[in-house]
Amino acid sequence: MTAQVGIIMGSKSDLTIMNQAAEVLTELGVSYELTIVSAHRTPHRMVEYAEAAKGRGIKVIIAGAGGAAHLPGMVASLTTLPVIGVPVKSSNSIDGWDSVLSILQMPGGVPVATVALDGAKNAGILAAQIIGTHDDTIGNNLAEYKIQMRKKVEDSIKEL
Amino acid sequence: MTAQVGIIMGSKSDLTIMNQAAEVLTELGVSYELTIVSAHRTPHRMVEYAEAAKGRGIKVIIAGAGGAAHLPGMVASLTTLPVIGVPVKSSNSIDGWDSVLSILQMPGGVPVATVALDGAKNAGILAAQIIGTHDDTIGNNLAEYKIQMRKKVEDSIKEL
Amino acid sequence: MTAQVGIIMGSKSDLTIMNQAAEVLTELGVSYELTIVSAHRTPHRMVEYAEAAKGRGIKVIIAGAGGAAHLPGMVASLTTLPVIGVPVKSSNSIDGWDSVLSILQMPGGVPVATVALDGAKNAGILAAQIIGTHDDTIGNNLAEYKIQMRKKVEDSIKEL
Amino acid sequence: MTAQVGIIMGSKSDLTIMNQAAEVLTELGVSYELTIVSAHRTPHRMVEYAEAAKGRGIKVIIAGAGGAAHLPGMVASLTTLPVIGVPVKSSNSIDGWDSVLSILQMPGGVPVATVALDGAKNAGILAAQIIGTHDDTIGNNLAEYKIQMRKKVEDSIKEL
Amino acid sequence: MTAQVGIIMGSKSDLTIMNQAAEVLTELGVSYELTIVSAHRTPHRMVEYAEAAKGRGIKVIIAGAGGAAHLPGMVASLTTLPVIGVPVKSSNSIDGWDSVLSILQMPGGVPVATVALDGAKNAGILAAQIIGTHDDTIGNNLAEYKIQMRKKVEDSIKEL
Amino acid sequence: MTAQVGIIMGSKSDLTIMNQAAEVLTELGVSYELTIVSAHRTPHRMVEYAEAAKGRGIKVIIAGAGGAAHLPGMVASLTTLPVIGVPVKSSNSIDGWDSVLSILQMPGGVPVATVALDGAKNAGILAAQIIGTHDDTIGNNLAEYKIQMRKKVEDSIKEL
Amino acid sequence: MTAQVGIIMGSKSDLTIMNQAAEVLTELGVSYELTIVSAHRTPHRMVEYAEAAKGRGIKVIIAGAGGAAHLPGMVASLTTLPVIGVPVKSSNSIDGWDSVLSILQMPGGVPVATVALDGAKNAGILAAQIIGTHDDTIGNNLAEYKIQMRKKVEDSIKEL
Amino acid sequence: MTAQVGIIMGSKSDLTIMNQAAEVLTELGVSYELTIVSAHRTPHRMVEYAEAAKGRGIKVIIAGAGGAAHLPGMVASLTTLPVIGVPVKSSNSIDGWDSVLSILQMPGGVPVATVALDGAKNAGILAAQIIGTHDDTIGNNLAEYKIQMRKKVEDSIKEL
Repeated sequence: MTAQVGIIMGSKSDLTIMNQAAEVLTELGVSYELTIVSAHRTPHRMVEYAEAAKGRGIKVIIAGAGGAAHLPGMVASLTTLPVIGVPVKSSNSIDGWDSVLSILQMPGGVPVATVALDGAKNAGILAAQIIGTHDDTIGNNLAEYKIQMRKKVEDSIKEL
Repeated sequence: MTAQVGIIMGSKSDLTIMNQAAEVLTELGVSYELTIVSAHRTPHRMVEYAEAAKGRGIKVIIAGAGGAAHLPGMVASLTTLPVIGVPVKSSNSIDGWDSVLSILQMPGGVPVATVALDGAKNAGILAAQIIGTHDDTIGNNLAEYKIQMRKKVEDSIKEL
Repeated sequence: MTAQVGIIMGSKSDLTIMNQAAEVLTELGVSYELTIVSAHRTPHRMVEYAEAAKGRGIKVIIAGAGGAAHLPGMVASLTTLPVIGVPVKSSNSIDGWDSVLSILQMPGGVPVATVALDGAKNAGILAAQIIGTHDDTIGNNLAEYKIQMRKKVEDSIKEL
Repeated sequence: MTAQVGIIMGSKSDLTIMNQAAEVLTELGVSYELTIVSAHRTPHRMVEYAEAAKGRGIKVIIAGAGGAAHLPGMVASLTTLPVIGVPVKSSNSIDGWDSVLSILQMPGGVPVATVALDGAKNAGILAAQIIGTHDDTIGNNLAEYKIQMRKKVEDSIKEL
Repeated sequence: MTAQVGIIMGSKSDLTIMNQAAEVLTELGVSYELTIVSAHRTPHRMVEYAEAAKGRGIKVIIAGAGGAAHLPGMVASLTTLPVIGVPVKSSNSIDGWDSVLSILQMPGGVPVATVALDGAKNAGILAAQIIGTHDDTIGNNLAEYKIQMRKKVEDSIKEL
Repeated sequence: MTAQVGIIMGSKSDLTIMNQAAEVLTELGVSYELTIVSAHRTPHRMVEYAEAAKGRGIKVIIAGAGGAAHLPGMVASLTTLPVIGVPVKSSNSIDGWDSVLSILQMPGGVPVATVALDGAKNAGILAAQIIGTHDDTIGNNLAEYKIQMRKKVEDSIKEL
Repeated sequence: MTAQVGIIMGSKSDLTIMNQAAEVLTELGVSYELTIVSAHRTPHRMVEYAEAAKGRGIKVIIAGAGGAAHLPGMVASLTTLPVIGVPVKSSNSIDGWDSVLSILQMPGGVPVATVALDGAKNAGILAAQIIGTHDDTIGNNLAEYKIQMRKKVEDSIKEL
Repeated sequence: MTAQVGIIMGSKSDLTIMNQAAEVLTELGVSYELTIVSAHRTPHRMVEYAEAAKGRGIKVIIAGAGGAAHLPGMVASLTTLPVIGVPVKSSNSIDGWDSVLSILQMPGGVPVATVALDGAKNAGILAAQIIGTHDDTIGNNLAEYKIQMRKKVEDSIKEL
């Protein structure tokens, strides 16, 4: 089966965070692919990845990066697919502020759907929600996921 | 025709900004509805709106708010639809930082697709991209929109 | 005896901090209840808790949360009781700034009495001060508490 | 009738903001007094005001100040009454950050109930909520105030 | 004569700021070209410009952009020429912080020589200093420029 | 001999930092006294200390505190002696920002000579410089201190 | 009479702010001189000014600058006189943060007595306080100044 | 062979960071010298170093410092050589913000080419790029360096 979601990240060091997107997509029944695409060290690979994604059947791209994080915004400039940006609190980041602002503050015309700092799990859920707008199975999985979240809170209440 | 996108905002004063989402959706051929839903002054209306949206055929919700901006995140807690948050630099905001952080920094499990401060236009484009993942007409409109953006830059180059 | 103060928090991980409110309330002779209410994972429970609190005899609600911390403000939108907000420096918070701003910066009409980052102890004292405005026993306990604080400083001076 | 709420501010220039507390207290049927008490220019007056307030029948103190805003915290050190702090974005403030942090970040033992930057209106409502914990008339006024807020939103929806 | 410095900017609205680089280069006797290259709206033009610049005889590239400012960093990823980045306080910027951080905080391997917010004049001088490392005429012009700056201060002292 | 400098701090936990002022004063030959004065827990002691200091022969007061740090500014409101404020990065501080801003941003009329975060050593040197304006022995000690600093750098250069 | 206080500033544009130091010194009976010394445009003049000041009878230097404000710290490195730094919110400053941090955060060994942003008036008072440690006339003027400040507050109270 | 690049730093404690500039210069075939020059503890040495550098054949100066970091800007005021500033997150820095702002925000006329916080490696590459504008060997080394960076990413992709 073709991947519906493409997860990319600027550096291998982002893998621990970005794997959280992969895990929740698996849990929600959404297929994905995962690889490294560096805006600054492999710019041509970035252009090729972004321009080919839609043709290969990808529906949503999740891009994570830290510091001066240009990957999500640049990919968004090269495709009409929705791009979800994950600001990563990388070792070269100033407490995450650079990662957040360089992903979030895109100019008019080229949106990036930004999630919380290190919020790769939420990026995965958001991608599933996008797929779920037209796929009832995924939509149902998301409804069930919400119920399970609620139940976990209810369980933790009993344990107090 | 049923609206595909629901645009809501916390206060009438957000209308100037949030209308930019409506305008670009019109330009891209996506139907929408627009109303005021205040998390803090009409919390029950918020619950009802968020829980009924999917059943009414809404595919994406765009929610704008400023200051301690709880509307996007609370709506996201009540629906499995993708929710796009627009941080508004309202008159009671500290330079927009409160608006941005209270929308962006959602906990694991409940994503909000956050766009730039006052970035309602990009919220509209992002909603269209989400619709466009399964609607080729909208997808083509987005491709044409990108071409027109590029042409405007090329025109401004000639004018230099 | 009915609890006078309701202590709620968004997640079990907030318990270490929020227990400091419970401890100081015990010290000051104010009854309380403590439980988990998640704005984003149990929104209906939040509505029910906030709307029922006054009828159950609760006089003050202390609500702690971190990151995009919507619990204190949303509870305040659903009750006329004073709500004290405790910004928690949770693991997903950007150094506490998101917690502080999303609790403090409430719009006109819906106040949250915000205390310092991780300031649950002060939330407990503030709740006692509110009870103490009409309860002389608690008022006296607070006066004694202030004397003890002063004496501890005086002791530390002698130890220098 | 003795004032139930004491509104004080560090400077005459804070009056435009702080009058909003007075207005909403009037609207909610709570009596108040209003004067200037400068922590830095009239420190003895501050000590006297804070220490005498409870004996004069004051139930809650609202203190507004800007920049290095020491008034709310110092008053709180001198009374067991609840003290509400209003950070004012005064002309000498760095975008309000100094006002917010020097009021909010009180050490353990001495809480200040902080409201939003320039949030004097919310300070008034919070004071009424505190009075309302033991005064049903004020409690009912607050409930009616909430209803009117909701109705104003509903009216603005119709006007869209 | 071939331009030694290429001045590019993300949007026509950056022109007022970026012209200050052009003016000081003229004053210092350095040839330049100036055009618009948008990272997000004309990404292919950006790739072409950056990759062709060295071959056309350009020695230094000055790139200005605001908000999520990706142009300087992306150009730096595509050339071995020194790239000077000018963070512009554009209308969509949060007080310039996004512009500064998304240009400055480049990952190891791909530097951008960042100047102050709206510091296009200094970008021009820096470009001249780079040319001047191997061009004595420009080096002398820079020495004379420093003398004139000092004299202007000395004149302003006399006017006091 | 009467102490020339009074070193005070808001809490025993500030002692490690504030001792650095004492050490450098000893090194520079300036007499001092050191004690705890809490603005919030011992406000009357603070008033007494500040008002009596000049009469006891104190020439300069060094006051350190963290979080909502009111001690330096309040002492300055109660004396005409120069007051040096040391913002301490205490455990309840938000990365030191609250400490810095609540000491630095004093209103017109009541200055506090603020040094760097945790800069107690510099507070000691500054106090000596103030004494040294009229005491040649201290002035000479400061000149010698500067020479030793320079020599330490010169030594570290040789060790490279 | 020889000037006791040297007021210097980095640029003529700082004059409006820095004149406030001169005015309050006049009011307090302290002699001063005022001139422009630019760290970056007249570095040798800065070295000469700082090294000669003490010998000319100057007791305190007040130095104001904005943006990357190096003047106060560099002067402090070249003299053993107390140096008071005034962070100026100049046109090239990012809301004053750069001015504040580049003056305040001096390394151990070289203090700058920093006052509030644009706080030149307080710089003047602080300089007078330093002179006043050994000059009873100035000390008395400062005591009188404090009384007048208090009286102005008392007058404004009556006008309410 | 004469050094082409002068690497200086304010303190021996900056050596771990600043050595990264030296290492990459070695890798790229650019000669350098490295020493300590403290703006605040050895100001005359700083003046001499900066003014002599060009005459000794130095083409580029890399200056690293932390906190109130004046070294890069002061050196730039004393030479017409390009000066690269490295903000160091030193132990006395407030999360690096002071280092960044006091290096970056230079006034018009005196640029410092600022790189990322602790970005000494990029400072080295930037210096090589400046040398490479007129030295084809270095230019080729830089091109090869870029290829190797790309290959490392490609290798890490295979390892996923």
